Amino acid sequence: MARWEPDAAGRLRAAALDLYVDQGYEQTTVAEIAERAGVTARTFFRHFADKREVLFAGSDVLAQRMVEATVSAPAGDAPLDAVGRALEVAAEMFGAGHDHSSRRQRVLHDNPELLERELAKMAMLAGALTDALEQRGVDRAAAQMVAEAAITVFRVGFDRWATGPGEPSLEESLREALAQLRTVVG
Amino acid sequence: MARWEPDAAGRLRAAALDLYVDQGYEQTTVAEIAERAGVTARTFFRHFADKREVLFAGSDVLAQRMVEATVSAPAGDAPLDAVGRALEVAAEMFGAGHDHSSRRQRVLHDNPELLERELAKMAMLAGALTDALEQRGVDRAAAQMVAEAAITVFRVGFDRWATGPGEPSLEESLREALAQLRTVVG
Repeated sequence: MARWEPDAAGRLRAAALDLYVDQGYEQTTVAEIAERAGVTARTFFRHFADKREVLFAGSDVLAQRMVEATVSAPAGDAPLDAVGRALEVAAEMFGAGHDHSSRRQRVLHDNPELLERELAKMAMLAGALTDALEQRGVDRAAAQMVAEAAITVFRVGFDRWATGPGEPSLEESLREALAQLRTVVG
Repeated sequence: MARWEPDAAGRLRAAALDLYVDQGYEQTTVAEIAERAGVTARTFFRHFADKREVLFAGSDVLAQRMVEATVSAPAGDAPLDAVGRALEVAAEMFGAGHDHSSRRQRVLHDNPELLERELAKMAMLAGALTDALEQRGVDRAAAQMVAEAAITVFRVGFDRWATGPGEPSLEESLREALAQLRTVVG
């Protein structure tokens, strides 16, 4: 068994999710995840701090890309349209992985501790998008509200897509959630 | 020292917050909180599960009153106006305690674990308001979005008020946050 393989992180993520779905998050150990992925526990810890973080490994990259999309949106975009581009980027990142997202969402809903962590990540994402909008010249208070509204749309639209059959697409689900927010608030 | 006093819970809450602000949340023990409140640790545990829950003691009552306000809003109220009444109730409950809320918010911002817990409580509140709106005949998807939007307004408006000087009032701060949401989304 190779001590280091380029795809170890990906296999560890898949193995962890399989085990969390099959036998429960609480009941699963790092040793079991590593074994299923065909690596050592030491390899696991080179990639992830603990068994919880396996489920949140992509969130830094997500935040970075969403921030980039917001900052680089056309100058004429209204603030909500600019973060709308960040939502499109998120849809590109996750849209093809309905099965994975669906199973991950189930594990989250079954474990309040994980749901809390997800909410905290979403709050950090809202903070990052607030900063991104400020870079576009939006004043801080408005930027915060736009970012929070976008994250609400993201959470609701993503959850509907992930807990549903996968159709309509994530992109469409986010678009519908945004349209719904406009309807109920307008 | 009396083993049981009607106001023990209130004194424990005040003592806990004093200690969290003065010496830090992590550094404070239940024994210290109880001593400062003039009760035994056993009395502490009659009122609160642990030192974290002292900070979230009012959240069930808050949720209950906000649900009642939403359900009993005039039949002609649009969904967002109905939850707007729940925000008014929240403002009545907390509006007079700026000093307490301000110090509590500081402790929360200093401890990610507490901030996660607060977000989880807010998510539960959104769920309760979704159910309340459904009782009014709003369809589930719209009810969820309205409730999430209201909680976003609550979180942002409350945080601005609690981390600010206390003027404008909480009621006004929530009203401004709602107006701002309408502006940025509309």
